[in-house]
Amino acid sequence: MHPLLPFFKPQGVAIIGASSNPTKLSFGIFRNLLQYGYQGKIYPVNPNASEILGLTCYPDIHSVPDPVDLAVSVVASHLTPSVVEACGQRGIKAVTIISGGFREIGPEGEKLERQCLEIAGKYGMRLVGPNCVGTMDLYSGLNTTFIHGVPEKGHIGFLSQSGAICGGIVDYVRGKHIGFSNFVSLGNEADVTETDMIEYLAEDPDTRVIALYVEAIKDGARFMRVCEEVGKTKPVVLLKAGKTQAGAKAVSSHTGSIAGAITAYKTAFKQSGVIEVDTVIDLFDIAHALTCQMLPRGNRAVILTNSGGPAALASDSLGLHGFALATLAQETQNNLRKFLNPSAQVANPVDMLGGAEPEDYERSFREIAGDPNVDILIPILVPQALIKAEKVAEAIVNASRGVNKPVLCCFMGDEAVQEARRVLHGNGIPMFTFPDSIGRVLASMRFYSQWIEKSGKKVNIEISRDQKVVEKILESYRDLLSIGEIDTRPVLEAYGIPVVEGGFAASLEEAKLLYRQIGPSVVIKVVSPQILHKSDVGGIRVGINSVAELESAFSSMMEDVRKKCPEAQIMGVLIEKMAPKGQEIIIGMKRDPVFGPLMMFGFGGIFVEVFQDVAFRVAPMDLQDAKDMIFETKSGKLLQGYRNLPEFDVDSIVSCIQKLGQLALDFPQIAEVEINPCLVLPKGHGVLALDGRIVLAKE
Amino acid sequence: MHPLLPFFKPQGVAIIGASSNPTKLSFGIFRNLLQYGYQGKIYPVNPNASEILGLTCYPDIHSVPDPVDLAVSVVASHLTPSVVEACGQRGIKAVTIISGGFREIGPEGEKLERQCLEIAGKYGMRLVGPNCVGTMDLYSGLNTTFIHGVPEKGHIGFLSQSGAICGGIVDYVRGKHIGFSNFVSLGNEADVTETDMIEYLAEDPDTRVIALYVEAIKDGARFMRVCEEVGKTKPVVLLKAGKTQAGAKAVSSHTGSIAGAITAYKTAFKQSGVIEVDTVIDLFDIAHALTCQMLPRGNRAVILTNSGGPAALASDSLGLHGFALATLAQETQNNLRKFLNPSAQVANPVDMLGGAEPEDYERSFREIAGDPNVDILIPILVPQALIKAEKVAEAIVNASRGVNKPVLCCFMGDEAVQEARRVLHGNGIPMFTFPDSIGRVLASMRFYSQWIEKSGKKVNIEISRDQKVVEKILESYRDLLSIGEIDTRPVLEAYGIPVVEGGFAASLEEAKLLYRQIGPSVVIKVVSPQILHKSDVGGIRVGINSVAELESAFSSMMEDVRKKCPEAQIMGVLIEKMAPKGQEIIIGMKRDPVFGPLMMFGFGGIFVEVFQDVAFRVAPMDLQDAKDMIFETKSGKLLQGYRNLPEFDVDSIVSCIQKLGQLALDFPQIAEVEINPCLVLPKGHGVLALDGRIVLAKE
Repeated sequence: MHPLLPFFKPQGVAIIGASSNPTKLSFGIFRNLLQYGYQGKIYPVNPNASEILGLTCYPDIHSVPDPVDLAVSVVASHLTPSVVEACGQRGIKAVTIISGGFREIGPEGEKLERQCLEIAGKYGMRLVGPNCVGTMDLYSGLNTTFIHGVPEKGHIGFLSQSGAICGGIVDYVRGKHIGFSNFVSLGNEADVTETDMIEYLAEDPDTRVIALYVEAIKDGARFMRVCEEVGKTKPVVLLKAGKTQAGAKAVSSHTGSIAGAITAYKTAFKQSGVIEVDTVIDLFDIAHALTCQMLPRGNRAVILTNSGGPAALASDSLGLHGFALATLAQETQNNLRKFLNPSAQVANPVDMLGGAEPEDYERSFREIAGDPNVDILIPILVPQALIKAEKVAEAIVNASRGVNKPVLCCFMGDEAVQEARRVLHGNGIPMFTFPDSIGRVLASMRFYSQWIEKSGKKVNIEISRDQKVVEKILESYRDLLSIGEIDTRPVLEAYGIPVVEGGFAASLEEAKLLYRQIGPSVVIKVVSPQILHKSDVGGIRVGINSVAELESAFSSMMEDVRKKCPEAQIMGVLIEKMAPKGQEIIIGMKRDPVFGPLMMFGFGGIFVEVFQDVAFRVAPMDLQDAKDMIFETKSGKLLQGYRNLPEFDVDSIVSCIQKLGQLALDFPQIAEVEINPCLVLPKGHGVLALDGRIVLAKE
Repeated sequence: MHPLLPFFKPQGVAIIGASSNPTKLSFGIFRNLLQYGYQGKIYPVNPNASEILGLTCYPDIHSVPDPVDLAVSVVASHLTPSVVEACGQRGIKAVTIISGGFREIGPEGEKLERQCLEIAGKYGMRLVGPNCVGTMDLYSGLNTTFIHGVPEKGHIGFLSQSGAICGGIVDYVRGKHIGFSNFVSLGNEADVTETDMIEYLAEDPDTRVIALYVEAIKDGARFMRVCEEVGKTKPVVLLKAGKTQAGAKAVSSHTGSIAGAITAYKTAFKQSGVIEVDTVIDLFDIAHALTCQMLPRGNRAVILTNSGGPAALASDSLGLHGFALATLAQETQNNLRKFLNPSAQVANPVDMLGGAEPEDYERSFREIAGDPNVDILIPILVPQALIKAEKVAEAIVNASRGVNKPVLCCFMGDEAVQEARRVLHGNGIPMFTFPDSIGRVLASMRFYSQWIEKSGKKVNIEISRDQKVVEKILESYRDLLSIGEIDTRPVLEAYGIPVVEGGFAASLEEAKLLYRQIGPSVVIKVVSPQILHKSDVGGIRVGINSVAELESAFSSMMEDVRKKCPEAQIMGVLIEKMAPKGQEIIIGMKRDPVFGPLMMFGFGGIFVEVFQDVAFRVAPMDLQDAKDMIFETKSGKLLQGYRNLPEFDVDSIVSCIQKLGQLALDFPQIAEVEINPCLVLPKGHGVLALDGRIVLAKE
């Protein structure tokens, strides 16, 4: 039995702190428990009452008889630890703490929350909340919330990190006839998190789609793992609040400055198959469509309408999201012509004109559904004076029986289409009020279906690497904040990333010696722990082709750097072979506190700075993820033999991204690492790190 | 008196073809005319009836007594011309033709439509329709539609190019308590167009905002002129359908291939102050907010809420659209602290928690409204079990009286907030169901307010030019499709656009002569009417620094070109001075069939091709428009002294755009013109056209 099952299908539930005062929220909970068909036992617990709403009231949890496997606590926060303790002693393994007054009010509440958690740990109990609205199960009838009304029975399992939002959502989805299996307010998530609940809902037979309202995720890596697994059988749809408040932190690399906190969230969602939406309406429109419609097998849609205007808006929505208007077979068009109004349009959009009757919808729908050129059907109705929208709804329901293609309706209006929505939603056909929803919903369905396909083909490779080398270097930088180019070079090399040939010279004499090995064409760069951006202080000289040039470049560089950074301690220079011709790219990693190593790819210079043309993935990722990342950028096009450019070595970029990702996974003390510039050479010639640096995590 | 006034406030209206059969649409019209308080005379006209719904029926329009200044025709299309003729004879100057069967059904219907138009012209009549749903005036009570129900009385004047959509829209806005002044279905626009109606609504005292659903505009230049004028006093909000079907046409310049038909629409809307929206919901949300709320004077918003979740979503929406959360004065926070729940959040968002009462909303609202750091107020409510949403609505209405700042509410839910919406909308405060609408609505308000400010400061300059030179050249190309570089040069020069020094040489000998004038460093380009893209066929040689180099470049170029284009007729070469260092840009024009000269600016090469980083404006435009165009592109940043780049001559780009725009305005036979590349030099050194071509309009 799943340990979270008692939160939804308990055999008996005790309400600790149940009140008979109708103005108290605990009374609301008690009333809800009684009125939605819950068949298990209900035990009010309150030392000051003998019965509530006709049920025997118990003085404490110890005196509650069997069966009881869920306790809902509504007592004040300072009394809650003792309630949890008593429940533990009574052998109850599931407690929902509705009351607030915990972590959300400050240190004192945080202490109480920690106490509850410790007690729960001792007894092996699970806690939902505190500071939550409770749980509903539309199949067992359990409702431990004080919300007015319940959603209809259906197949969305909904999880919310906001409690206060829940009442508004229930009211909204009731009006839209969107059905739920479960409804969970998670509160402070002291114990049970969104990820735990996703795992539970994955096993719940009545839940087909998991929908979440999320403000923050604690363990991002686990969330991704769980969603990737669950996503294979049930879609996860998610609305994330707090996307723009994430304020830029002080960061020291390009990857760092571009990859804000929300980038990690968005990247992680996309990568793990989570369907991220932008609005509450989309959350439920998309979740609902996924509960009742199959995924589209292609992108060719047909619009069947009684009005050209909304058909044009629907076409726009389809076009915007990459769907096409199907070309109907000539036979289909001929058949439609036989019975539709002679002025009707039988090409797609099929416009039956304002006088279209329910029967026209039904017959046309059947014709179109049978056309092999059609992947998706979109019936649209604008209510007309003489036609009942619900009759059209029934016609569509009839015609769609046995049709093996997704059907999404748009019935425009409000009051005039309410009954039609009830009919359609009651029969598993999603209906939207305006056509612009259609493209968004279909795009989410396609995203999910493509993700499933891709997730079945994952290729993970083993990276051969020498972790010992890196360990030693990191150890020597233990109390420092960053590692410069000199010591980043061996780190990259230990992970098999090719680095341009070169070495450190503490003096001009040493530089000359190295020149003889590396020359005839070299670059020199100043080495100083105080200088992060060498080129900004004149600390790089390129195209040195003789010892004489080396001497003059060395001295003029030193002069410039001393002028610009008089306080810098100059250790010497790095002398490197002049790089061959290639394209400069950046490969970087910034460790996200929630999701871990966030990898970035982009072209260097203005492409990153002016166009912000970069892409992200969370490591670990498979080969295809790394490849997708490159071609998600616009500049990626320039790697494939664009105009006079050669075809570049994309496979080596993929491999380099993966190696840098593995480095980040192996060494959590690395906060950021960036190869910038990284030179990508023509196909077959690999990549070459020209510069790199590491930022270390502060303890 | 405005000639369109009788369509809204007639003294008497005749329904020609009125029926007493309740299943006919004409009966619906008649019933609507009777039931919404219209105080003028109503005359059913039907030779086969003596009375309809208690009103005397007339056999024909001639027998209808005075006053009658509007006729609504619902007779079959083939009878309509005679009805229009009869109305003309009777002296009626306004006819609405509801019936279909005209242009929309093909050539036969088109002929009937033309006949009606000619008759109308003869009598100086105005026609609305045909193939339309009619007009409503919520103030005179006139309703010549057969739509079920009417919107509430308010201040949106709505125009629709789709008739069928109207019923759905009326049903929708009724449910949302969004009020209208007028409602117009324009049909085929045989005579009266959307632009005519905009001019009428501009003068209507009850219309504060004009909202349009548009599929196509006939006279784009007039539409822009009218909207620019009307926009100074009344906002125009518009939804354009058919954005993605506009399919790419065969075009021959970069400007042409990038600027699709919808680009012109979007550019024209933005430039003439029209607020373009993407959805039906936004159309009415935004129009409604503009009817009743003042424009924000700054971007600092305060959220006042009983739930953190929607506050987070509202913050996201604000952030996404460039609005900020205001920092409340310490005094305001202290005052809030005095009466709110001790756990409440008094910094912005002000979260009063789930238990917030109407009084908390009222007192907090007053405190916040008085804070000088606040520009916008956003009260949010999620319905809670013990609080009535409509009481909160009333509290907000009370508190907002006399407040000189925009107020936008979000009340989440459906049934539970219906009554609250009635209260808020009835008192001029817009309410949305979900917080994501807020940022979009505010962004539209800000767009409009900034446009008004800008439109007051227009600077138009006179371009000195020699039109005679251009006339002669165009005349000589009369039957041709395009003008190559050689003859485009003098056209540009005639409009004061600097062109790189150079000349045509028919032979190597002539080239050598020219070299002595232009050298020492030159470029040569092949000249052939068959070669459009010279560089693709090896037809350009750069960096020629001596007569010897000229000889060898000339012969090798000729060889290459003959190999690649054996059929090309080679006229000679263009020999030009090697250009100084600068940044290559493109300035182009493509004449849009609706709006006229659509100007494009962008950086050359991959910036246009890979990043499509370009901006558009319709000529004529003022100086600021041209400047905005440059900095609307991301690459524009590179012109202002980016990193090691110099500051480039932006003023000269502005001037060049304006000159090319003037050329396009002066010569409608030019379909496309492009300077590509155009070289922009460092500040003070101007621009230099390095190549250019003209595409001529096909007759």
